[in-house]
Amino acid sequence: MSANLDNIRNDIDKLAEFNATPANGLTRFSYTDEHQKVKEYISQEMKKAGLEIYEDAVGNLFGQRSGLDNSLPVVMVGSHFDSVKNGGIFDGTAGVVAGLEIARILHSKNIKTKYPIFIAALVEEEGGRFGSGLFGSRAMIGKVAQDDLSRYKDENGVSIAEAMQKFGLKPENLEKANNWKDKIKSFIELHIEQGPILENEKKDIGIVETIVGIAAYEVEITGRPDHAGTTPIDMRANALLLASAIVQYVDKLAIEAGEGTVATVGKLEVFPGAVNIVPGKVYFTFETRSRNEHKVEHIVNSVEGFLKEKCKNGLTYNIKKILLKKPTPLSPKIISTMEENAKRLNLNYKNMISGAGHDAMFIREIADTGMVFVPSKNGRSHCPEEWTDYEKIKIGTDLIYQTVLGLAEI
Amino acid sequence: MSANLDNIRNDIDKLAEFNATPANGLTRFSYTDEHQKVKEYISQEMKKAGLEIYEDAVGNLFGQRSGLDNSLPVVMVGSHFDSVKNGGIFDGTAGVVAGLEIARILHSKNIKTKYPIFIAALVEEEGGRFGSGLFGSRAMIGKVAQDDLSRYKDENGVSIAEAMQKFGLKPENLEKANNWKDKIKSFIELHIEQGPILENEKKDIGIVETIVGIAAYEVEITGRPDHAGTTPIDMRANALLLASAIVQYVDKLAIEAGEGTVATVGKLEVFPGAVNIVPGKVYFTFETRSRNEHKVEHIVNSVEGFLKEKCKNGLTYNIKKILLKKPTPLSPKIISTMEENAKRLNLNYKNMISGAGHDAMFIREIADTGMVFVPSKNGRSHCPEEWTDYEKIKIGTDLIYQTVLGLAEI
Repeated sequence: MSANLDNIRNDIDKLAEFNATPANGLTRFSYTDEHQKVKEYISQEMKKAGLEIYEDAVGNLFGQRSGLDNSLPVVMVGSHFDSVKNGGIFDGTAGVVAGLEIARILHSKNIKTKYPIFIAALVEEEGGRFGSGLFGSRAMIGKVAQDDLSRYKDENGVSIAEAMQKFGLKPENLEKANNWKDKIKSFIELHIEQGPILENEKKDIGIVETIVGIAAYEVEITGRPDHAGTTPIDMRANALLLASAIVQYVDKLAIEAGEGTVATVGKLEVFPGAVNIVPGKVYFTFETRSRNEHKVEHIVNSVEGFLKEKCKNGLTYNIKKILLKKPTPLSPKIISTMEENAKRLNLNYKNMISGAGHDAMFIREIADTGMVFVPSKNGRSHCPEEWTDYEKIKIGTDLIYQTVLGLAEI
Repeated sequence: MSANLDNIRNDIDKLAEFNATPANGLTRFSYTDEHQKVKEYISQEMKKAGLEIYEDAVGNLFGQRSGLDNSLPVVMVGSHFDSVKNGGIFDGTAGVVAGLEIARILHSKNIKTKYPIFIAALVEEEGGRFGSGLFGSRAMIGKVAQDDLSRYKDENGVSIAEAMQKFGLKPENLEKANNWKDKIKSFIELHIEQGPILENEKKDIGIVETIVGIAAYEVEITGRPDHAGTTPIDMRANALLLASAIVQYVDKLAIEAGEGTVATVGKLEVFPGAVNIVPGKVYFTFETRSRNEHKVEHIVNSVEGFLKEKCKNGLTYNIKKILLKKPTPLSPKIISTMEENAKRLNLNYKNMISGAGHDAMFIREIADTGMVFVPSKNGRSHCPEEWTDYEKIKIGTDLIYQTVLGLAEI
C-alpha cells in the first residue's frame, strides 16, 4: 500500500485556505486565527487516523500512535505548518501532510509497530511573525530562553509571550516543551527543496546527507561622502567601491570552495545614496554555507582579511557576526535505510545537501534524523509562485512510509 | 586698493544668520523668510555701495552701476545665495559677497568704467527646495519652461509658482527674466571649489578653464530572487553581482580616461534586500564627468556595452538617461586676463576644471564667462563642515576686481 495522491492534494489544498493573504501567496503566522484553523484541521485528521492529540507548551502539535512497547523512544515524522509572509502553500505544510498520510496508511492497515510513531506539526519555523526562526524545534530541545518570549515581537509590538497567551498557551510553561531527550528514536522530515537542483537534474526525490553550516555577518564600511563631481578618483574614500569588490570576492570564494558551497551578499545599503555624492558609508550582509565547516571558516577569514587589507586611505570597517552554525550531518543509518528503500521502490533519487536550515537540524541534536526533499518548480520558495507537484510529495511520503516501517519495526 | 577682509568676514557671517536650521548647517531655501532677509541685507549693502537695485521676475537680485556708456553690455559679477538643506555658509554666498565688496571698492574710489557693472545675487541654484537646480541662471537665458513653475514642488507640495506668488513675485512674468541676450559682456563668478585639489596642492586660487560635461544614468538590473542557501552559485541570476561589477568598472574607466575624468555610482538599492535571498533586482545610478566630452561618451558607451554583454542567464537591464550636458569651456579671453592679473598680484594660483555645475555654466551660453575657485577645507561642501578661509575669498575678490577693471575699461 502506498500514499493516496488525492489525500495529499486534499490536505495541501485545504490547509492553503487558512491564509491571511489569500490574494497574495500564503501568510500563516503563529498564534493567529489561521494557526487556530490549521490546528483544528490537523487535529481532526489526526483523530481520524487514530492518533491521540497532544499540544505542547509552545503549540507544537503531536499525533501519537502507540507502539507495542510504549516505553521505547518514538519514531517521529513531521515538519512545520507556519509560513513566511506572502509565501507558498508547500513549505513546511508538505512535510506535515506526509506525516498525516503515513498515519492514515498505518491506521487503515492496522499495522502494529514495536516503537510508537508520532506525527509532528511544529510552530514558527520561519520566524515570519517574530523574527525568531526554528522556534518550535528549538523549544523541543531547550534552546529557547524564557526571556526570548518577551524579547521577540511582531511588527505590531506583540511579544511571543503575549501572542501565546492570547492563543491559550502558558508562556511560563516553555520549559515543559523541552521534554524529548532520549524519547525520540528517529525524526524524519519531508520538505520542499527550495532550490533548483532536483528539477534541473530531473530527480523525483532528494535524500539529504547534511544540512549546511552557515556563517552570516554584517559589515559596515565607512569612507567619506565627497562631491562626485569635484573629488578626483584618487582622493576618494569610496565605501561602495570596496563593498562591491567584496560582493565579487565572496562569489569567487564560493566557486573556488566547491562542494556546493555558496556565499551571498543579500542586503546592501548605500549612504547618503545620492546620484552626485561618493558613497560615504555602506552597510551590507554576507553569508556563506557549506557542508564543509572548514570552507565556511575559510571564506569568513578571507573576507575579513580582504577588509583588513583594503581598508586604508580613509576607509574603515566594522564586522559583526549574525549567525554561526556548524554543518549538521544527518543520521548515516537513516540515510542508508532511505537509499535502500528508494532503490527498492525504484525511485529516481539523488543524495544531496540542504542549503537551508530546517527543524530536523535542531532535533538532530537529540535524535537520529533524516530528511527527504521534493522538487521545487524553478527552485522557487517563500513566494506565491512556490510549487511542488503533488505526485512528488506522494513519492516522498511513500519513501518515508517504508523507512518508518523499518525504524519502528513492524 | 584691495578687498577688505573685515567686510568679507562681516558679510559672510551676517548672511549665515539667515538660516532655517541654525543648529545644523545652513538651510536657505528660495522664497522663504530666510530669502527675504538675505534680500533685505544684500539690497541694503548694494545701496550703500551706490548700486541701483533690480529684482527680476524670479527673484534674482541685481545691483546696477552705471558705466560711461549705458548702452553697452554689462560686466556682471555674482553667484547664488540659496543653499542645500543643512549645507554650509560659503557655497554661493562667497561669490555674492565678492560682488558686494567689488561694488564697495568701486564706489569708495569713485571709479568710472566705460561699461556698466552689475552685481548679481541669484536664486535657487541648488534646487534644494524644488529639485530644479540652476533655476535663477536658467531663467535669465530662457531655459525655464512656464509649466516647470507648477510642476516642481517642495516637500510640502508647494509649487515654485505658489511659493513665488507668496513671496510677492508674479510667476506669469517668468519670461521677463529672460532679458539678457547681448546685454552681458562678461560674467564672473567666485565660488568655493567643493573639492580637495586647491588645498592638497596648497594653492590660494583656481582659475577655471572648463566646467565639465556630465552624463548621468539610472540603471535597473533584474535577475531572480532565489534562496541564498539552496540555489547553487552557477544557477543564480544575481543582480547585485553584475551591479557591483559595474561599480568597479566605472571607476576603472574614469582612471583610464584621465584628464581629471570622474565616474561614480552614488545610489544603489538592492531588492528584496534580505540576508538570505540572492538579490533579484538592483537599481543604481552612475554619472561621469569630464572636460572632454568624448571621454564622457566613451564611458557611457562602455557601461552600456558591459551591460549588454553581461546580461544573460536570466539577467536583464534597463538604462535611462537622467542628464547629459556637454563640457562648457569658459572664455579664453577672461581666463588669460585672470592669469595675467594673478601673476601681477603674485597669487599662488592653478588652472583647473570645475567638476560641479554653476550658474556661470548657463550664462556662458549668452556671454563671455569666467570663474574663480577658492579652496574648500578638506574638500567638503554641502554640509555643516563646509569651510573656506575668509582670506582666500579676499584673494579671489582681488583677482576678480582687477579683472573687472580691465573688462569694464576704466
